[in-house]
Amino acid sequence: MEKFEIHILGCGSALPTTRHNPSAQVVNIREKLYMIDCGEGTQMQLRHAKLKFSRLNHIFISHLHGDHCFGLIGLISTFDLLGRTATLHIHAPQQLEQLMTPWLNFFCQHIGYEVKFHPFDTRKSCIIHEDRSMSVTTLPLKHRVPCAGFIFDEKPTPDHLIREMIDRHQIPTYELNRIKNGGDYQTPEGETIPHDRLTTPARPPRRYVYCSDTTFLPENQPLIKNADLLFHEATFASDNEARCNETYHSTARQAATMAKESHAKQLIIGHFSARYEDETPLLNEAKEVFTNTLLAHELMKISL
Amino acid sequence: MEKFEIHILGCGSALPTTRHNPSAQVVNIREKLYMIDCGEGTQMQLRHAKLKFSRLNHIFISHLHGDHCFGLIGLISTFDLLGRTATLHIHAPQQLEQLMTPWLNFFCQHIGYEVKFHPFDTRKSCIIHEDRSMSVTTLPLKHRVPCAGFIFDEKPTPDHLIREMIDRHQIPTYELNRIKNGGDYQTPEGETIPHDRLTTPARPPRRYVYCSDTTFLPENQPLIKNADLLFHEATFASDNEARCNETYHSTARQAATMAKESHAKQLIIGHFSARYEDETPLLNEAKEVFTNTLLAHELMKISL
Repeated sequence: MEKFEIHILGCGSALPTTRHNPSAQVVNIREKLYMIDCGEGTQMQLRHAKLKFSRLNHIFISHLHGDHCFGLIGLISTFDLLGRTATLHIHAPQQLEQLMTPWLNFFCQHIGYEVKFHPFDTRKSCIIHEDRSMSVTTLPLKHRVPCAGFIFDEKPTPDHLIREMIDRHQIPTYELNRIKNGGDYQTPEGETIPHDRLTTPARPPRRYVYCSDTTFLPENQPLIKNADLLFHEATFASDNEARCNETYHSTARQAATMAKESHAKQLIIGHFSARYEDETPLLNEAKEVFTNTLLAHELMKISL
Repeated sequence: MEKFEIHILGCGSALPTTRHNPSAQVVNIREKLYMIDCGEGTQMQLRHAKLKFSRLNHIFISHLHGDHCFGLIGLISTFDLLGRTATLHIHAPQQLEQLMTPWLNFFCQHIGYEVKFHPFDTRKSCIIHEDRSMSVTTLPLKHRVPCAGFIFDEKPTPDHLIREMIDRHQIPTYELNRIKNGGDYQTPEGETIPHDRLTTPARPPRRYVYCSDTTFLPENQPLIKNADLLFHEATFASDNEARCNETYHSTARQAATMAKESHAKQLIIGHFSARYEDETPLLNEAKEVFTNTLLAHELMKISL
């Protein structure tokens, strides 16, 4: 099956610790890399994960808190030192370009490639990037500053031809692509052979959803439904719900409820508060609501 | 003896690798911490080194290349999250304040302490900080942008009184401080007891010198002479001298020559180019000129 992998580069929260780096992930879809958030130290984590810098052309920044974007300037400089020429697209809330421009002008004066900012409105769900095989849709989140999550959707792949049926009806090659993509076949005698007798269905397209940072937002469930994997922040356990509400974060229980109610296949929780030296209580709390839950950790890789 | 320790937090150069972080060091003089340079990831290294954030009040930035200052914004944010109230002094070449201010205003809006910038002129050697027990003097370096090294000098400590002599001459207590600091003693009978009969000399004050990034600058030898420890960049080995000159860096041999000619007691080399997966050739080359040479590595601690 074509590659669809999630690499966790950092799953700590605002205060990095010796155990957790600030937020950053890489989604690898068919050897194209998409970065989500870019906290300080992300370029080093990218090296540790042995991900190829040259395959990364799009970075998606959920919101403009430092633990989600302070790694950008170093990453951009390093790309330049490595001789990059391809445009780097940074999708982020408004203001990032304005903040970055004086730094880019000063520190990356003779940069050999273009850094292109694509601001998006965090208040509505829109497709902000797509190509032949995938799309990225924003997901409005609720945090202390404008913030959006991201839905990575694979596009449907064509159905598989049943070779035996193609041979039996002597279907010409030029008809095959149309049939794979849903068409029936009309024989020279005028008989219609329906699509589903000629093909087996393609596997369903896969979906990865990233929700961080946010309060518990059940109204997002229809938008994120049926994710193969849902990453949801779980900054705190439920015993810290007051602190959690105050800071516009989610508890592990709330993350699990989102997974359950949106019919995710699997949940991964992260963005752990520095107060937890061991996140087992967060995992246990989430599993009570949604069994198929994983704790994120640095350099973890999950294949969908 | 009072503490005088150097912690290496990062000794890589512009391209961080899986082995080396960008430049950062901490000098611990009697439990006051002084940071030199602050590349990306320094705050994480500070935690790994188990250094107390609250003891750090002064940061010295040698020059405005990203690998020497991209970690500042994250460190400043973290200090705020940790509840810092003490002023943080940042000594740096001109322009850093102007670059940092919009980021501080945006990312650290409600910061609970003052960040005070102290620009210095990299073209001349001046004392830019001192207290009762130490001083920091800039050292003009030659790099692609304005750049200075730093000389950390301990102030002389008073000589040690010889208790037996004090008792024999029945010297009153109020005279002792003056004698420790170099004075003779005049007896009531008018006899002069010279200082060096009443005291043993204090140990000589210690000196740490930081030279990075720079071309080979023999004219600095009188300024840095007799360092107990000299950190000198050695980005390349001599077989890359052309590249070295082009980029305004030093070879390991040049670093060792600086140590030898300036009569350093010990040399530590760092700021290694990412091309070296093993720095032994750099060490061997330096040792040919100056035997007492060490290779820097992350989280290394050297006591003077």
